[in-house]
Amino acid sequence: MPYKVLVIPGDGIGPEVVEAAMYVVNAAAAKFGVELEVKTAEAGDAALRKYGVAMPPETLKLADAADVIFKGPIGESAYDVTSLIRMRYTLYANIRPVKDLPGVPAVKPIDCVFVRENVEDVYVGAEYKVGDVAIALKVITGQGTRRVARVARRYAEARKRRVTIVHKANVLRVVDGFFRDVALEELRGLEVDQMYVDAAAMELVRNPSRFDVVLTTNQYGDILTDLAAQVAGGIGLAPSGNIGDNKAMFEPVHGAAFDIAGKGVANPIATILSAAMMFEWLGRRDAAEAIRAAVEKSIEAGYKTPDIGGKYSTKEVGKYIASIL
Amino acid sequence: MPYKVLVIPGDGIGPEVVEAAMYVVNAAAAKFGVELEVKTAEAGDAALRKYGVAMPPETLKLADAADVIFKGPIGESAYDVTSLIRMRYTLYANIRPVKDLPGVPAVKPIDCVFVRENVEDVYVGAEYKVGDVAIALKVITGQGTRRVARVARRYAEARKRRVTIVHKANVLRVVDGFFRDVALEELRGLEVDQMYVDAAAMELVRNPSRFDVVLTTNQYGDILTDLAAQVAGGIGLAPSGNIGDNKAMFEPVHGAAFDIAGKGVANPIATILSAAMMFEWLGRRDAAEAIRAAVEKSIEAGYKTPDIGGKYSTKEVGKYIASIL
Ligand SMILES: CC(C)[C@H](C(=O)O)[C@@H](O)C(=O)O
Ligand SMILES: CC(C)[C@H](C(=O)O)[C@@H](O)C(=O)O
Repeated sequence: MPYKVLVIPGDGIGPEVVEAAMYVVNAAAAKFGVELEVKTAEAGDAALRKYGVAMPPETLKLADAADVIFKGPIGESAYDVTSLIRMRYTLYANIRPVKDLPGVPAVKPIDCVFVRENVEDVYVGAEYKVGDVAIALKVITGQGTRRVARVARRYAEARKRRVTIVHKANVLRVVDGFFRDVALEELRGLEVDQMYVDAAAMELVRNPSRFDVVLTTNQYGDILTDLAAQVAGGIGLAPSGNIGDNKAMFEPVHGAAFDIAGKGVANPIATILSAAMMFEWLGRRDAAEAIRAAVEKSIEAGYKTPDIGGKYSTKEVGKYIASIL
Repeated sequence: MPYKVLVIPGDGIGPEVVEAAMYVVNAAAAKFGVELEVKTAEAGDAALRKYGVAMPPETLKLADAADVIFKGPIGESAYDVTSLIRMRYTLYANIRPVKDLPGVPAVKPIDCVFVRENVEDVYVGAEYKVGDVAIALKVITGQGTRRVARVARRYAEARKRRVTIVHKANVLRVVDGFFRDVALEELRGLEVDQMYVDAAAMELVRNPSRFDVVLTTNQYGDILTDLAAQVAGGIGLAPSGNIGDNKAMFEPVHGAAFDIAGKGVANPIATILSAAMMFEWLGRRDAAEAIRAAVEKSIEAGYKTPDIGGKYSTKEVGKYIASIL
């Protein structure tokens, strides 16, 4: 049975980076004998303009039926697409590996994996406005914390058995304190330390190599992973996987970057490395490792987009990486 | 009438950096003829151990009577001291200038002022736990946003008339959207742009000189100012002022740093520059400018603590700066 892959190209540079990544996906599937049944669907700002809804019913039906979603960045309607998918399929762990690549100047060496809780916190969408006061709920559950902490445990066990829990329990004593306590319980037996989110932001610039696996709540993870990606050499390189118990979605960490859309200069590596994560999640580590190796080789060979000092186009980089798999 | 200054040395390195800063405060007051009536009081972890309460009633009484509070960092009980003072006296604007200093290696050049809302957001302390669910309220009011936006306007008018509003209104449409809308209204006539908090964290590493005045909510401000201080060359240099309509508190951005407490190696510059902000708030720009100039001269002369590559002690740096005012 082939794996059902739903591709959502998305907005801005999305269609370009996804097209480039699909060269690699198809080449890897062929080379490693992974059967994929690929469908493509619209979602995002363009869909909103066209159909009046950012996530059209047809796309939703295809997403429901898919094993895995491979998605480009979404523009202003990201909450209605990206967050909706995360919530609807309870993709509770957002995995964001951050590692500087040889040949790309990093601010400082970094090699860590963020495990970001992905469906709770202020992202639950419980917001109210009454007169002059607006209130949003920040929600943390024990169940939600336990399951994402277990994912962090698995990553830590495959790495250095070290986890840093990032929270702000000195201020948010109840909610962040609850997250910390449940996480500590689930991570027993590993080497665990804790850091306040403000200190963690600072440390990611001062001494990023002190982090290995980082477990944190949804919004802190949103902020810290963009930051960490920049420390590693730029947001154009950072992949991510949104993992649930039965479904997953893979996407670059970066946004739609409308200012450079259509110019063929967007870096497809974040999306290509997201494809590698997808193969790994499908149980095909061979294909995943081959893609990662080809990405490193392409950079060494100078096949780079302008953001990391090259002169090649999005498409050229994608095709080159596909060709050397 | 002398100004009533309450000094709270705080925890960890607090007593050391405050002692060093007080050499400078006293020298500046004498030189510029600023009459200060200085009292000192306990608060923080040490007070908690001694009296069972982090903010003893006696300290509170002195704080009530003071015109201005000059405070070192507080340890684990910071919420009960620092946040309490901010809330009790409605010190609604937290001003955090971030600027790299000549002679201190910065990650990248940066020169901006953060205006952080200081009494709302998830800091209001409305948290609940019921069974497996913990909930905190994130509260934004129109009044609270308007008054802090007006402070940002004043800073922008004295600088480049540019403000960046940082929020996450693509996800928090109601609360962050409300903050943005009210801020936009208050900042009319200035050059205003907006950035999502995750993108802002990234930009602070990628291109920090694009920021001038930054207006943001309480928790985003907490995270971004630590980050920005690190970009500027280290948290040991970052001062802050918590400003209300009738009272203010000045303190370094850094924490109690228990690991280096008592060793005489803590950098007093963040606290000394906070003293400069205090003189400015008291209407004595002459004293403030003299302190800032003396700090720059001390670094040029090599009177630096180990964190920025020097070999002098906290006390020596404080005394030297006081001596060249
Ligand atoms: C676009 C937005 C909804 C999303 C988020 O905040 O989670 C994005 O920033 C991300 O990190 O995937
Ligand atoms: C200590 C803590 C309560 C405080 C905060 O989060 O505001 C500190 O980090 C700060 O930035 O002043």
